[in-house]
Amino acid sequence: MARLYHVPLSPFCRKVRLSLAEKKIEVELIEERYWEQDPDFLRRNPAGKVPVLRLDGMILTESAAICEYIEETRPEPSLMPKDAETRAEIRRLVGWFDDKFHQEVTSKLLYERVNKKVTGEGYPDSKNVKAGAKAIKYHLDYMAWLLDHRRWLAGDQMTLADFAAAAHLSCLDYISDVDWNRSAAVKDWYAKIKSRPAFRSILADQIAGFRPPPHYADLDF
Amino acid sequence: MARLYHVPLSPFCRKVRLSLAEKKIEVELIEERYWEQDPDFLRRNPAGKVPVLRLDGMILTESAAICEYIEETRPEPSLMPKDAETRAEIRRLVGWFDDKFHQEVTSKLLYERVNKKVTGEGYPDSKNVKAGAKAIKYHLDYMAWLLDHRRWLAGDQMTLADFAAAAHLSCLDYISDVDWNRSAAVKDWYAKIKSRPAFRSILADQIAGFRPPPHYADLDF
Repeated sequence: MARLYHVPLSPFCRKVRLSLAEKKIEVELIEERYWEQDPDFLRRNPAGKVPVLRLDGMILTESAAICEYIEETRPEPSLMPKDAETRAEIRRLVGWFDDKFHQEVTSKLLYERVNKKVTGEGYPDSKNVKAGAKAIKYHLDYMAWLLDHRRWLAGDQMTLADFAAAAHLSCLDYISDVDWNRSAAVKDWYAKIKSRPAFRSILADQIAGFRPPPHYADLDF
Repeated sequence: MARLYHVPLSPFCRKVRLSLAEKKIEVELIEERYWEQDPDFLRRNPAGKVPVLRLDGMILTESAAICEYIEETRPEPSLMPKDAETRAEIRRLVGWFDDKFHQEVTSKLLYERVNKKVTGEGYPDSKNVKAGAKAIKYHLDYMAWLLDHRRWLAGDQMTLADFAAAAHLSCLDYISDVDWNRSAAVKDWYAKIKSRPAFRSILADQIAGFRPPPHYADLDF
């Protein structure tokens, strides 16, 4: 069986979990305290990060490389349509969320509020939290603008771009940092993606010391 | 003709330039002062970053999305072999350089020494410069270890992984921050890649206020 070394509130791990679940690849989840840099773990991934996926007798790392590998070896159901233009748009948006959104929002809210406590790095820096709370508004508005033109973020079809975005937002929703009233289009999009079977394991996550708000796992939030 | 909005000392732009040149796609280079956030530029890329490539009547952004698009639409000469395992290894290494190396080395040396001056953000933070100078040693050793097992970074063939690594190292070499005496294997690898016609435009770059060392453009460095 596939095995994923992960942490529950990592958007990069969640993106991989969503891809695996959508493709109906069964996976054993192993929580990895990657910040302790265990030598066995570093042998699996010298970069010292999660996600790390054991699949097809290989060790795969880097969430972008993992998701592309899954797509190439298990093309159905497709999360990357065949035409090069749409694929470029999907990858642009995956980069948008995993790079820009991550830097401006996820690292400022989730990492300050949760990761610092879990890894023993101390208290949230309120300047960062404030910056993240401000930046997420702009990003929700950008998503609303995209969804004004498109059914899903990259076009007519649900793709890896939607999973990248939903992975970040679901982590932030766990700590009540998403204002779903800001845009009806974004809320509808998240309701659609949240109701997919692939999302179930993510909605069942429980992180010790952090209780999610009641709406977190509610499909009619 | 293709048009690339770039800055000369951006490893992400250089990776795209190397891909374009290797595929013999002629391109007009336009220097973009992206930090001034010109509205015309933001319309092309709301993420506000370079590289931005106009190609096939489209605007492409995010260097990973751009390089994959070029590979999919111009497969020869190949920078990504067909088998999924090698492709995963290439993408892992592109992620290694564009994420880990970028964060631990490029942002600590190049951005402190050059970008801060160019964008008027002030003086280098010596703590960062020291950390970058220390981290690059580990990365050169990791490359040496890979090249001990392989002809090129991801295997027997030159790929996008080599271009990602060479893009970062060439920027750092411009400011004399690479100790080529640390590993003969890495130096040989760089000599091979540096002598490719695709590298010529990069070796001819001149940045006002920063003069490269004499060995920068020398193929027998």
